[in-house]
Amino acid sequence: MVRYKLLIEYDGTDFHGWQLQPDVRTVQGEIEQALQTVFKDRLRLSAAGRTDTGVHAAGQVAHFDAPHFLPVERIRGSLNALTGRDVVVHAVDEVDETFHARFSAQARQYFYRIALQKTAIHRRLAFYPGQLPHVPAMQEAAQCLMGSHDFRAFSKKIPGEKHYLCDVEQVEWFREGEMLIFRIRANRFLHSMIRLLIGGLIKVGKGQLSPQQFAEILHSRQQNNTIYKAPANGLCLEKVYYPRHHA
Amino acid sequence: MVRYKLLIEYDGTDFHGWQLQPDVRTVQGEIEQALQTVFKDRLRLSAAGRTDTGVHAAGQVAHFDAPHFLPVERIRGSLNALTGRDVVVHAVDEVDETFHARFSAQARQYFYRIALQKTAIHRRLAFYPGQLPHVPAMQEAAQCLMGSHDFRAFSKKIPGEKHYLCDVEQVEWFREGEMLIFRIRANRFLHSMIRLLIGGLIKVGKGQLSPQQFAEILHSRQQNNTIYKAPANGLCLEKVYYPRHHA
Repeated sequence: MVRYKLLIEYDGTDFHGWQLQPDVRTVQGEIEQALQTVFKDRLRLSAAGRTDTGVHAAGQVAHFDAPHFLPVERIRGSLNALTGRDVVVHAVDEVDETFHARFSAQARQYFYRIALQKTAIHRRLAFYPGQLPHVPAMQEAAQCLMGSHDFRAFSKKIPGEKHYLCDVEQVEWFREGEMLIFRIRANRFLHSMIRLLIGGLIKVGKGQLSPQQFAEILHSRQQNNTIYKAPANGLCLEKVYYPRHHA
Repeated sequence: MVRYKLLIEYDGTDFHGWQLQPDVRTVQGEIEQALQTVFKDRLRLSAAGRTDTGVHAAGQVAHFDAPHFLPVERIRGSLNALTGRDVVVHAVDEVDETFHARFSAQARQYFYRIALQKTAIHRRLAFYPGQLPHVPAMQEAAQCLMGSHDFRAFSKKIPGEKHYLCDVEQVEWFREGEMLIFRIRANRFLHSMIRLLIGGLIKVGKGQLSPQQFAEILHSRQQNNTIYKAPANGLCLEKVYYPRHHA
């Protein structure tokens, strides 16, 4: 048995998310099908982050156990040949059995692209929420996310979840042309968390919520019905962090 | 009769180019159909640059003559509602009858996006030519394009064309993440010219042609069979320049 780690990029637009489901196209399903052709065996992928329908990944990480060794470059070439053009396997590495794409991950980094004007060219990769007259307030509001917080206010209810604590290590905004990009790194993210955060931050950008009110919602630890979930197309799993010996 | 000028962005991936053709989806056809709904009349669009199949535009300019006045914001709203999500009309302006989208244009600016690594997310907007070990040589080679030159070496044969002279006003390379972007502004471009230039520059980047040989091909004024046409998806009409009174 040989364990392999994959570094995967995908355009989530035409996928029903990462996770395998019957009768629909998913990233996991697409790559597992390719693995079956390569290894003549039904293999199971585990991913660091199971992205939702329409969410992209620049640096998704997954692992699988193969019944026998094959050279990593041959696996990479075959997977790229056998999957759609909206999936690229950038790297294949042999790893030891202590590596687990999900459980070994120390942090995940996502970004969310907000288009500052309506766009045709970037519409698959960015969300245009209409005019945002208060961008500096959005930047100010996001500061309260840094550190360790109970993010219940920005999560779907998760049955059986033990706690809603997340350690946010980095929050950053930057411009790329007519795009405003929000980047966040944390040890974990709750379901829908980033899209709910962006929904709240967009309200701040529109002047419907002050940075103080945004912080109060966070600290209330209660779901807030006025916060909507921003669309999937702006969201991208950028990078997964592992301990040095697994990096 | 009222003349209107349109500023248009489109993702060319799912269009058979700008120019109206029967039975296929073209940008001109899509917008003219919307204009017919708005003005209850068959109107004709003239564009600054008739982009080929798969070529994008961030700032295409076109004009049309309407049988009667309508507020520009109403035209813009209607056109955006009536065309696909891969077309955005950013501005509608009333112009006088001396303005012609094509003949009044003083210069056109295009860029071409070269992906430095294979990409899923940006595959519709960038061309990945494989490894380019000699990027500085590409940048050096492009310098010979500045100024007034006969570009016959980088053009399809054009029946009835009087001359192949183009005045290149700007040539620029810049990086955006894992993208290498070539920007060029000239008073005019010949058919397939930029895609043939990029094909040649990619040969320089691969070490198959020196900057000197690239310059010799230009100065030979003869079509060169070793130069291939780079794919349409990397090319984008960025901006059209008009005299100040028409800008």
